[in-house]
Parts: sequence; structure tokens; C-alpha cells
Amino acid sequence: MKIPPVKGTRDFYPPDMARRNWIIDGWKKVSVRNGFEEYDGPIFEYLKMFQIKSGDEIVEQLFSFKDRGGRHLALRPEITPTLARMVNQQINSLPKPIKWFSVPRLFRAERPQKGRLREFFQWNIDIIGVDDVLADAEVIFTTVDYLRSVGLKQRDVRVKISSRKLLASSLKNVGIQETQLLSLYALLDKYSKMPGDTFKKMLSEQVMDESIAKKVINFMGSTALSEVSEIIGTNAEVEDAIQELARLKELLEQMGVWQYCEFCPGIVRGLAYYTGVVFEVHEFSQELRAICGGGRYDNLLHDFGGPRISATGMGMGDCVLGILLDERGLFKPESKELDYFVAFVDEVYRQNVIELTMKLRSAGFVTNFSYKAVKLSKQLKEASAQNAKRCIIIGEEFKSNQLVIKDMATGKQELVDYDKFLSELKS
Amino acid sequence: MKIPPVKGTRDFYPPDMARRNWIIDGWKKVSVRNGFEEYDGPIFEYLKMFQIKSGDEIVEQLFSFKDRGGRHLALRPEITPTLARMVNQQINSLPKPIKWFSVPRLFRAERPQKGRLREFFQWNIDIIGVDDVLADAEVIFTTVDYLRSVGLKQRDVRVKISSRKLLASSLKNVGIQETQLLSLYALLDKYSKMPGDTFKKMLSEQVMDESIAKKVINFMGSTALSEVSEIIGTNAEVEDAIQELARLKELLEQMGVWQYCEFCPGIVRGLAYYTGVVFEVHEFSQELRAICGGGRYDNLLHDFGGPRISATGMGMGDCVLGILLDERGLFKPESKELDYFVAFVDEVYRQNVIELTMKLRSAGFVTNFSYKAVKLSKQLKEASAQNAKRCIIIGEEFKSNQLVIKDMATGKQELVDYDKFLSELKS
Repeated sequence: MKIPPVKGTRDFYPPDMARRNWIIDGWKKVSVRNGFEEYDGPIFEYLKMFQIKSGDEIVEQLFSFKDRGGRHLALRPEITPTLARMVNQQINSLPKPIKWFSVPRLFRAERPQKGRLREFFQWNIDIIGVDDVLADAEVIFTTVDYLRSVGLKQRDVRVKISSRKLLASSLKNVGIQETQLLSLYALLDKYSKMPGDTFKKMLSEQVMDESIAKKVINFMGSTALSEVSEIIGTNAEVEDAIQELARLKELLEQMGVWQYCEFCPGIVRGLAYYTGVVFEVHEFSQELRAICGGGRYDNLLHDFGGPRISATGMGMGDCVLGILLDERGLFKPESKELDYFVAFVDEVYRQNVIELTMKLRSAGFVTNFSYKAVKLSKQLKEASAQNAKRCIIIGEEFKSNQLVIKDMATGKQELVDYDKFLSELKS
Repeated sequence: MKIPPVKGTRDFYPPDMARRNWIIDGWKKVSVRNGFEEYDGPIFEYLKMFQIKSGDEIVEQLFSFKDRGGRHLALRPEITPTLARMVNQQINSLPKPIKWFSVPRLFRAERPQKGRLREFFQWNIDIIGVDDVLADAEVIFTTVDYLRSVGLKQRDVRVKISSRKLLASSLKNVGIQETQLLSLYALLDKYSKMPGDTFKKMLSEQVMDESIAKKVINFMGSTALSEVSEIIGTNAEVEDAIQELARLKELLEQMGVWQYCEFCPGIVRGLAYYTGVVFEVHEFSQELRAICGGGRYDNLLHDFGGPRISATGMGMGDCVLGILLDERGLFKPESKELDYFVAFVDEVYRQNVIELTMKLRSAGFVTNFSYKAVKLSKQLKEASAQNAKRCIIIGEEFKSNQLVIKDMATGKQELVDYDKFLSELKS
């Protein structure tokens, strides 16, 4: 009986697994060197946990089920609710600031499309307990540190930065009501994804006053902080938001990554829970979806029953990143390689081959031997096919306690004493 | 709103995550040095895939759900069906033998108890395409190679080995019908888990003839191959099975791990699909569940719509292993450590601290700095608390382009040229 894999999932054959590991190991290494500690939670949580942050509409995008005890559970579509739950559970004993990262496997019951699968990995970094925009800068630095480490250059990626404070204060300053903001964000978030005319038409449905609508459109198209106050006028709140972003720029310059960044007031991020700096990283030509996004979310822990404590973070999936790395030829997964291949000249030495192979493995060396009792030339071919660095040949010389070690790159052979070789293995 | 985690799942706070990573990294390292390549599949598959191998009763133990397309899906309770599916999909292009390993996250909708959770990790190694018992020996060697590498000794663990061929031929030789075998296996599998009297009573319900039942009980209690033919008599089939196990012992001796092993004819393994050698590893006192188990399953790929191709493998979960490692004090997770902590003497140098910290991180060093503008003594305390190996202090000397580097273990300080330090970082 043949059964196919489920649509939107992936099989990781060894070459695919090597690529997946290469991405994830890179995320982990960059996280650790930037001072983040790894955590993880369960694959499934109570369904209602995902509704707190993202509302009821998220339920449509979840794989949910009831367990035998009648509990409504769901596969996690993101890790932030779990992070909030875990931090709240130990809020008093965890030393602050909390700098944590995770590489959860996540699930979304959506129609699979380019860069969007039903099952994927996502790198998450979060700093909890630091009000200062320095933490936002550090999150952005860590993001760029990773992108740079895999070989992406300024010409490949742009970090587009804005702030919810700037957005809210600017919109209010041109005459948008506070109560209108959330529904307007949902539209603004699609600004760069639709033709200008369509956007204009949809905006006019929410903002009747043409002169206000025009200011909103100009604001969304601006690319420099200096333009903002010209377009929408200014007040103390707008000024505050601009000051904060100016300080962020200064920090990113000190950190040596501002050249990857630009202000883009129209960056909204879909989720309602952001409260401060927000950013997205896009491939330069903007043909792909965002590579990652993040920002400050100072109310979330409180929404999950914890104290009011500030937080900022970033999430990067493996799908869009994988497409980009492929397009740029930047994947460099580790290729399979053997430290030793152990071969025999005559079958009488086969048990010695097995014995030595296992000794080498236990000493930490990646070692293989042939399952078949074939001629030496065939064994050497097998060694080459498996990318062996050295081949140990057990033959006549073994009677006088000696091994032949062949360097597979140079072809050079040397004779070594078996006991000496073994005692060196141990040290 | 406070929501608890789901029963039977685990939160991995950084210290727990370090332990999880230590176990999984160990599994991976030992797999690779023994010549296995890593693969993985999706977290969920079609529900019916898990019924092929384990029958309908497995459905009770699964987290299953319908997706929006009406597909019956389930979270994987094991990876072997996925392995069979993946190998069958590429059976013609994959070079044989196939030596693969995986560390899947698995799910079982059971009542959580000691050593058994609803969500866990399991190390799997499999060799596909090698008929010879040499492959079974290699699987057992790799298992012991891991257990030995974490510090478990002969006095801690025993590999208990039997064979389905021996079991079937012996039972038939004392008069059990072929058709009775499967239901009898289910009972025999519980032999060591129940008092002798209970076992005897339950056996008598399946085997009416007292003299046959007595032979079965004696067979289950035997610990040496030599005893087997005395107890149950012999024939060609029994002799074949004994010969194969004798050869396995010879190979395990050559591999240097026989001292961890013993024959235990009563090892059955619950699952119906085993066809040859079977084994379980138990903690010596037998107070815990089996640490791992495995064996030969030559029909499985065919059952999944592929060709008849031999296979043998092993699976080890992280729960029982974790309890054992804890009991023996063998956990050695990596502790958090910084290569550098960068501090300032006066706040005017703070931007230099930030600049240098980020340069060090991008060069690959685990580096931190203080978020707060506090006194040097407080920063040094923070450095100690974070286990920093070295502390770089930026002060007066920076005006003449020099840094103070303090070795945190010895307390020794040295003055270095900033430019020289930076240029050495790059190389």
C-alpha cells in the first residue's frame, strides 16, 4: 500500500537535511554569540492560547484537535504565546533581562504556496525586560549578523524600519480617529503588496476626507524621517517617535549595520500587538515575501496574565530564506566525509577490519568499512565514493603488527605500528 | 489570562534545553561517526500510514485530526513508517546500503507516567539493504557506542538479545501452532513485567497442555543459547536461528561490546513486524522501562508498497534515558560561557563598547555588554555572573588607542593596541 506525504509538508532526505541543519546551525551560532540562550516549548498548546494574541481569526489557520480528555488543542503556529506563558510562569526567578532564542517547528493550515508551507521552522530571538531602544537595535543587529554571516550583502537585503508610535501619532495628527487605527493598520500593511490605484480606492473607503487620505498616502511613500513632519505636521508625540527612531539609527551606526537599513514609515507588520519599533527584512527586488519581521510588544506578557514588562523580538522562517539562499547560490551545507575507511587485502583480515573500525568510531573518528568481502580495489573505490580522507589497509604487514595508511588526496602510503596507532587514538 | 501547558508535554527553559541538546548532540555525533546520514519527515502524516504497520489499535494512541480538506491526519507516534515511505519513493536512486538516522519529535496520546510522556524525542538508526547479521551487530554496536560515550558502564546497562526466528521455531518445536504465535508474543512480551504466577496463569489460558506450557516458561527463563536446545529440543530451523545468534555474538566480540550483551530468549518486542534479531537495552536493576529496543524487519518496506528489501534498526527515547542519566549523575550539558565581556570606565566610552561588542560577535566570539550605564565594578560583576573568560575594559587608555584585557580566571590584565586587536580578529 503506497501512501503519499501530506501536501505542504516536506521530506528531508539526507541532502535536504544537510541544508536544513546548515540554516538552523547558523541561526543557533549567531544567537549564542549575541548572548541569547535557547528555549523551546511543546508542539501543541491549548487552542485558546493562540486566540489571546491573534484573535479568533487565527483559529482558521490552525491545525486543531481534541484529545481524549476533551481538551481543545492546536499545533503551534508561532512560539511567542508559549514564550509569554513560560516567562510568566517563572517571572520572579528568571534573571532580567531575558535574552532567549528558539528554532521551533511551526504549523499553519493554509494553502501551500511559494515561500509558505504548512510546516516550517522559524528562528525567534527575544529580549524581555529592556525598555531602551538599545534592545531593538540589538535584535536588528543580530538579524543582520546572521544574514551577513551566510553571505548576503547590502545589495541583497534591506531592513525596513518604522515604529508603531510614529504610525499612530502621525495618523492621529492628520485627523484619523484612535478607534479607526486597528482596521486601518490591516490595510496599510498591504500597501506595498498592491497597485497604487487599488490601495487608493480601498483607503478611500476607510478615509472619506480626500486631503487626509492624500497625506496618509504620502506618509506611506516616505523614505526619510525628515520627510515625515513635512507631510503630516508635527506634535510632541510625533516628535518623540521620530527622536526614538533617530536614536535607533545612531545605535545601528555604532553597531556597524546601518548600511543594511532604511526607514520605511509604511512598515506596519500585520499583528495588532506591536507597540514600538517594527521592522521587516526584504530581498532587495521585493519579489519575495518578507524574509523576517519583528518589533516591540510591551503589552504581551501582561495580556497573558503576567506583569507589565517590555519585550522586543524577531522571527525568521526557513522557507523564504531558503529560496533566497538558493537563488544566490549561498547554501554551503556540510558534505559527507569520512576520517577513515578500513579495508583488507585478504578476507582473513576481515575481523581485524571490523575491530579497528569500531575502535576508531569509539575514539570519535567517522569511519566506515565494506559490508561485502570484495577485492581491495573495490573497497578503495567505495572509500573514494564516501569521501574518505584516509584509508587503512590491513594485509600481510599485519602479521608483523603493522598497518598501511593511505592518504586519499595525495595517494601517499605509510607503514605504522598498530599498537602505537591505537595508543595514539586514546590520547 | 493565564493558561497552563498541556499535561504530558514539557517546557524547555534554557537549563532543560541544554540537557536536551546534550542528549541529541550526542546521538547525532555517534550516528555520524558510525556512518549514518540524517533524515527527517513531517510531524504529521495520513492516519492510515500508521495503521499499516501497527494495526487499528494504534489509532487509540494517536493524536489525530482532520484538516480543512477533510484529510485524516495524525501526529507521528514513530518515524519508521515515514522512513519506509521515503525509501520506497526513491528506492531506485538511493545508493545501497542505506544507513540513515533521525531524531524525530514523536507523540502518543497516552496517560503520562514515569518515563512516558505524550511528546518526546527518539533517536532512530536504520540499515536498509544488508541481509547479513553484520548489520544487526552494527546497530547494536552503535547503540552501545552511544551509551558508553555518556559514561554508562557494564554495571549500568545490559543489551538483551534474542531473535524472532529462534522464538518462532522454538515455540513451534514444542507444539505451538503457527496461528497462535502472534497472540502468544503479546503475552510473552510481558513476561519480565509480571509476577511468575500471573504469567503462568495467563499462559495456561492460551496453552492448555501443561507440559508445553512448562517448556515455554523454561525457554523464557533461559539465559544461554546452549540451554535452548536442551529445553525445547532441536530441529533445522532452531539450529539455524541459534547459528545466526552465535555469529552475532562473534561479531559483537570483534566489535568489543559483547561484555555489554547477553542472550535473553524471552525478548519479544511488542511489535508484530520484527522478523529476525531483536534486542532491548535495560538498566541493570530493571527498575526502569527499556532504554531502547530494535531488531530486524525484513517485510516492512514491502508492506508499504515497496520491494522486498531487508532492514534492521533501533529506537531510543529521551525520557527513560534522561531519568537514568540523572540517577547516575551523568548529565554534562554545556554551561553558558562568554568569550568576552566589554565594559567601560566612563559612560563617554559606551558607544565604543557597543561598537567593539558587535565586532567581536560578528567575528564569531560569544560577547556581551551591560545594558545599563553602571559603574565598572558592577559591570565586572555582571561579567563574572555570565561566566566571561575575558573582560575588555575601555577607559582612559582608549584615547591612545589601547584596550585593557583582563583574564577573569587569573585576574591578570594586559594593555593591547586596538587596531592590532581588530586586525587579529579578522584573521
